[in-house]
Amino acid sequence: MKKVRLDELKAFSVKALVKVGVSEENAEIIADVLMTTDTFGVLTHGTKNLGQYIDKMKAGGLDAEAEPSIVREGPAWAIINGNKAAGMVSGYKAMKTAIAKAKNCGIAYVGVKNSCHFGAAGFYANLAAKEGLIGISMSNADPVIAVPGGSKKAIGTNPFSFAAPTGDGKSVFLDIALSNVAALKVIMAQEKNEEIPDTWLVDEEGVPTKDAFKFPKNASLQPMGAHKGYGLAVLVEILASVITGAGMLSEIASWNLDLASTNNAGHAFIAVDVAQMLGTDEFNARMKQISDELRNGPKAKGATRIFMPGEMEWEKREKALASGEIEITDAMVVSLTKLSSDTGAEINIYE
Amino acid sequence: MKKVRLDELKAFSVKALVKVGVSEENAEIIADVLMTTDTFGVLTHGTKNLGQYIDKMKAGGLDAEAEPSIVREGPAWAIINGNKAAGMVSGYKAMKTAIAKAKNCGIAYVGVKNSCHFGAAGFYANLAAKEGLIGISMSNADPVIAVPGGSKKAIGTNPFSFAAPTGDGKSVFLDIALSNVAALKVIMAQEKNEEIPDTWLVDEEGVPTKDAFKFPKNASLQPMGAHKGYGLAVLVEILASVITGAGMLSEIASWNLDLASTNNAGHAFIAVDVAQMLGTDEFNARMKQISDELRNGPKAKGATRIFMPGEMEWEKREKALASGEIEITDAMVVSLTKLSSDTGAEINIYE
Repeated sequence: MKKVRLDELKAFSVKALVKVGVSEENAEIIADVLMTTDTFGVLTHGTKNLGQYIDKMKAGGLDAEAEPSIVREGPAWAIINGNKAAGMVSGYKAMKTAIAKAKNCGIAYVGVKNSCHFGAAGFYANLAAKEGLIGISMSNADPVIAVPGGSKKAIGTNPFSFAAPTGDGKSVFLDIALSNVAALKVIMAQEKNEEIPDTWLVDEEGVPTKDAFKFPKNASLQPMGAHKGYGLAVLVEILASVITGAGMLSEIASWNLDLASTNNAGHAFIAVDVAQMLGTDEFNARMKQISDELRNGPKAKGATRIFMPGEMEWEKREKALASGEIEITDAMVVSLTKLSSDTGAEINIYE
Repeated sequence: MKKVRLDELKAFSVKALVKVGVSEENAEIIADVLMTTDTFGVLTHGTKNLGQYIDKMKAGGLDAEAEPSIVREGPAWAIINGNKAAGMVSGYKAMKTAIAKAKNCGIAYVGVKNSCHFGAAGFYANLAAKEGLIGISMSNADPVIAVPGGSKKAIGTNPFSFAAPTGDGKSVFLDIALSNVAALKVIMAQEKNEEIPDTWLVDEEGVPTKDAFKFPKNASLQPMGAHKGYGLAVLVEILASVITGAGMLSEIASWNLDLASTNNAGHAFIAVDVAQMLGTDEFNARMKQISDELRNGPKAKGATRIFMPGEMEWEKREKALASGEIEITDAMVVSLTKLSSDTGAEINIYE
């Protein structure tokens, strides 16, 4: 696999963003969101997409210079208008607002409207965990899941993430789509020409299919756990979009298929200040207790480890930070190279 | 199926509870929680279990006369000690506390320790929806799910529920266990001598099995969506138990196998006052918009309706309230008859 140095990727990302009118501060935020995601190993949601965010700024679907603003607020909540800023900027500022309010009140909710794809939900949940709070982060998205009894794409994968602090600079964290599997797994099955399990997709009649090639045109993703994932996706739609005034369900179009159009996705962030409720030391000790018990449990045949949620991602991040570089996918090579040629910013990709 | 009248079941339940020392007020609460659950059609979590709760009070594992008390609190949060009161009493008072605090602050979190099985999580979420707030309700429970890579029961089904108001006296609501399927579905497969899908259980080596009869002794439930349900179960464990000081993971024993032992389950409740954020009318209109869009979507082959989460349950409840009676299962006939003979309270069960 090809590689890039993290410091060079950071400088490249900031430079490319500033060139299209993003402030230095916001460019640093966007680069931090995307690169943290890369170091967690979630390469589908990191700097691979930077070029498309920038293309959307140039096309008018995002406003490179916009700053999110608070529309309404109370002691433990706020509604933020993203004002068409990049989703990473609104997401970062919204979770920072939730953290500050939770430090006063114990818990806080901040919703965002008029935003766009915010990268990986886990980044924002981890922002809270980094400050000793539990963070919960979610977003609606363009419909791609068929709901039980339905035949067509009706609701987004509506990503949901939480992160809980552990006192060691890391966190226990989960970042999931509410589909049974990610669309990317279907695409990978297409590339390998493999039959898929009948729990991934339904066809154009809403019937489970093993044919990966029907997706995306003639097939929809199945929700995680059937009615369970459907219900959770509706909860995310309510917290991220019904409350905030963002676009709902079919009002959200794919953010990267029509770059000139405003996306109007909504996000929701919740922060819980556990230090007020239990005290940081006792909370950390109890987190260690459940981690130890789960990780040290008897292993399944063929398994050598039990991982806490987020443990794999933290190991990847530590490795990346220690080496100062990450391996990048072919898709990232293409995307970063194109962005370099578009902006004149240089990035050194090596073997 | 046999039937009981709702008014008679209510009077019977209250009388049986008062006989063992529960206050009239708390007996009304417990009966309301269990009977609301029955009318939603969730007969496994309603008055069927009343006799066992009462047996646990008599055996000392629950304190019939206890009142939950607030241990610590802030503007938007509280930690409640259940003091071994029935889980329904602590759950009700905790969600009522969360609602009151959310009306002041916009959102509130209330955690409970030293509690026990609280019936169906959906009741408490709906308490908030009834007052125009979004309610979220969860509980930890004795381990019955094997986590990815593990071979033994390591974490509870950790029920999770939400309810959102709709302005018509009902709600959009979801009440789920975080296992792929409920243990009851495995038991039903045993009764019918059916092979089960290999996504329900893992055997004693942690390998997926189609043999329902291995459960519960030599098999564990699989989490919903593998690592996804595992992560969500960990989130519930953190909010309901790590923060509150309740028992964690293996510290929780089955509430009804050892009646004399204290259970020390933990719960978590969150209420969000949408009226402050958006206004009730606009919120209700937007809830109607997503309900209309989802329900009116194109149907899958063989499907005649798409249901909103909770819609089936509300239809059952409306039917029960209109007729003043519910059909009861054989297990309920046995359980209610035994309770009647134990307490001398009478219940009329008819065809």
